[in-house]
Amino acid sequence: MSVKVGVIGGGQLARMMIPPAINLGIDIRVLAEAEGSPAALAATAVGDYHSVDEVLAFAREVDVVTFDHEHVPQEVLKAMVAEGIAVHPGPHALLFAQDKLQMRQRLEQLGLPMPAWAKVTTVADVASFLDAHNGVGVLKTPRGGYDGKGVKIVRAAADAADWLAAGELLIEELVDFSRELAQSVARNPSGDVALWPVVESIQRDSVCAEVTAPAPGVSAELADEAAAIARTIAEGLDVTGVLAVELFETTDGRIVINELAMRPHNTGHWSIDGCQTSQFEQHLRAVLDLPLGATDSREPWSVMVNILGGPVGQELHERIGAATLASPGTKIHDYSKQSRPGRKVGHVTASGSTLDDVRANARAAAAQFD
Amino acid sequence: MSVKVGVIGGGQLARMMIPPAINLGIDIRVLAEAEGSPAALAATAVGDYHSVDEVLAFAREVDVVTFDHEHVPQEVLKAMVAEGIAVHPGPHALLFAQDKLQMRQRLEQLGLPMPAWAKVTTVADVASFLDAHNGVGVLKTPRGGYDGKGVKIVRAAADAADWLAAGELLIEELVDFSRELAQSVARNPSGDVALWPVVESIQRDSVCAEVTAPAPGVSAELADEAAAIARTIAEGLDVTGVLAVELFETTDGRIVINELAMRPHNTGHWSIDGCQTSQFEQHLRAVLDLPLGATDSREPWSVMVNILGGPVGQELHERIGAATLASPGTKIHDYSKQSRPGRKVGHVTASGSTLDDVRANARAAAAQFD
Repeated sequence: MSVKVGVIGGGQLARMMIPPAINLGIDIRVLAEAEGSPAALAATAVGDYHSVDEVLAFAREVDVVTFDHEHVPQEVLKAMVAEGIAVHPGPHALLFAQDKLQMRQRLEQLGLPMPAWAKVTTVADVASFLDAHNGVGVLKTPRGGYDGKGVKIVRAAADAADWLAAGELLIEELVDFSRELAQSVARNPSGDVALWPVVESIQRDSVCAEVTAPAPGVSAELADEAAAIARTIAEGLDVTGVLAVELFETTDGRIVINELAMRPHNTGHWSIDGCQTSQFEQHLRAVLDLPLGATDSREPWSVMVNILGGPVGQELHERIGAATLASPGTKIHDYSKQSRPGRKVGHVTASGSTLDDVRANARAAAAQFD
Repeated sequence: MSVKVGVIGGGQLARMMIPPAINLGIDIRVLAEAEGSPAALAATAVGDYHSVDEVLAFAREVDVVTFDHEHVPQEVLKAMVAEGIAVHPGPHALLFAQDKLQMRQRLEQLGLPMPAWAKVTTVADVASFLDAHNGVGVLKTPRGGYDGKGVKIVRAAADAADWLAAGELLIEELVDFSRELAQSVARNPSGDVALWPVVESIQRDSVCAEVTAPAPGVSAELADEAAAIARTIAEGLDVTGVLAVELFETTDGRIVINELAMRPHNTGHWSIDGCQTSQFEQHLRAVLDLPLGATDSREPWSVMVNILGGPVGQELHERIGAATLASPGTKIHDYSKQSRPGRKVGHVTASGSTLDDVRANARAAAAQFD
């Protein structure tokens, strides 16, 4: 009888948990949204994660429940906990990945560096924030946004009226940033913490396009600060599993917290090939309260490039040969999703000792999937 | 529609093909011998690989058929080929991994270095061989032996009588070897070949116990010779997929061919964690006639230690925490098999720049599973 981990959600994050589960002898079971999901190989159930009954039926058969995404409603999470089911991260932690207003309030209590922000419920609130911040702000719906959805830049308070009609919003200072960084950390219920190096993330159309690990040119002080921020959040919010903290590096050399993700994150995919312990293996270790593995990088540099969209009218696997010929050492990850403009359908990772070569290799392989 | 690879046999080799299949977006399907096999996650059928009908039913649903073992009978292999099913390696190649007499005859035609050998059908034949070779020989059944089974050392011709009653045998010179080496190669149907470094294999009770990659202290000449031997066999026998050539390094500094395996092999497990392209990914690439990946080592040294037997009265996963604490960077592979004395139930691999440390790390982790 192997130990059983149940994953709610059948996307590529669940998919990428399967290889380390196989390595560690973990019986991984996925509750997928539909047939034919990226994690279909391990899908033992298809159901609606909004349904207490469907989730409980799945969760009762496993030793620990974890997630492919943060969208499982609190009432469903709490129903599992009430039955004594181990849920990692727990509802009390996940809340802060589900609700950006709650997140800002809690991180402020922890004294962590953030953009200026405010809760706004009226157009007048928005006007007041804009007046205080050079007439511009970033409006966010507290719940449900991702990859740029639920986020808009406003320069006139009236532009917030339509979203305000649906409820209270978060407004944030438009940060004058030089680049985006991300710091991932894993924490297990016993309190052990393991950190990966801080990475640089390049976004295109609000979607992660390329990640360089470690972030080039980061000072030791800034790397230490990023690590300290992630550790403080993981411990302060009692996060179990992997936590990714998206950061802005400001033009004046500070870092401020943008978003949180309480699961393996796109900015950590490089760790599958670039680290002794990937974020997916570490997440499984953490939610099972196993000791965490070493997170040393295998090479000085790794670059991950997302495959966005995929080849029109073809499937990714038809291009694997070309990508390998373009860059034989670059690792290819195909999520078995249909090509569709802008969709995350795979990624590639190159590693090595010279950043320029590594980046060129990763981009050369990824370009074969355009 | 992903490309579909069917694997006959549900052992740990099929199991270890699943992670790279996931990475490459390959739909991997396994015909297992029984429920609950190590490759159960990908098992779409349970059946008897001796049955033409059962194998054909499985094979018709995939794009290419390959193997977890070499025991599928020739008539079953040929039935697939007759239907136009792509089978890699093909029956004409697999024959030489199935029948040691055929193998010796064919490799002799190729002019490759081997122990002195003879086909023997009578006790008198055995006596004649022993007379010519210092009174000792290694008797082998041509078919069905593995891990020391079907092999015995004979010093008196009469000791061969019982085995001879079952048919012709192979007898070989007892090689005075200093150590065992293994050279793995992958070849695709287009003829591309990729080689891993030659490794040293330490056997205990005729079972692979520990592998060091690359083999310490091997001269460039000897490494080149090992590579040339493997390439000559792969090309000469038209092997597709991974081929492992087990070699003896003799006390007088030569290498001679011991055995062949036409599939990923225990001496190549280190490549999962130690190489840019593992033998399992490369095998999938080769049988699909994809370009082969780079086989560069990630670190100067890797040591793999088999977990033989497993903890008595416990399961491997109960010891993973202890193994990680003993050596946080060592990668653990649990085949989800019941512990049983001598059984291969998992392995660990450590990698790094200093062989002594790497070996110590691998052994420290493996010792936690005793």
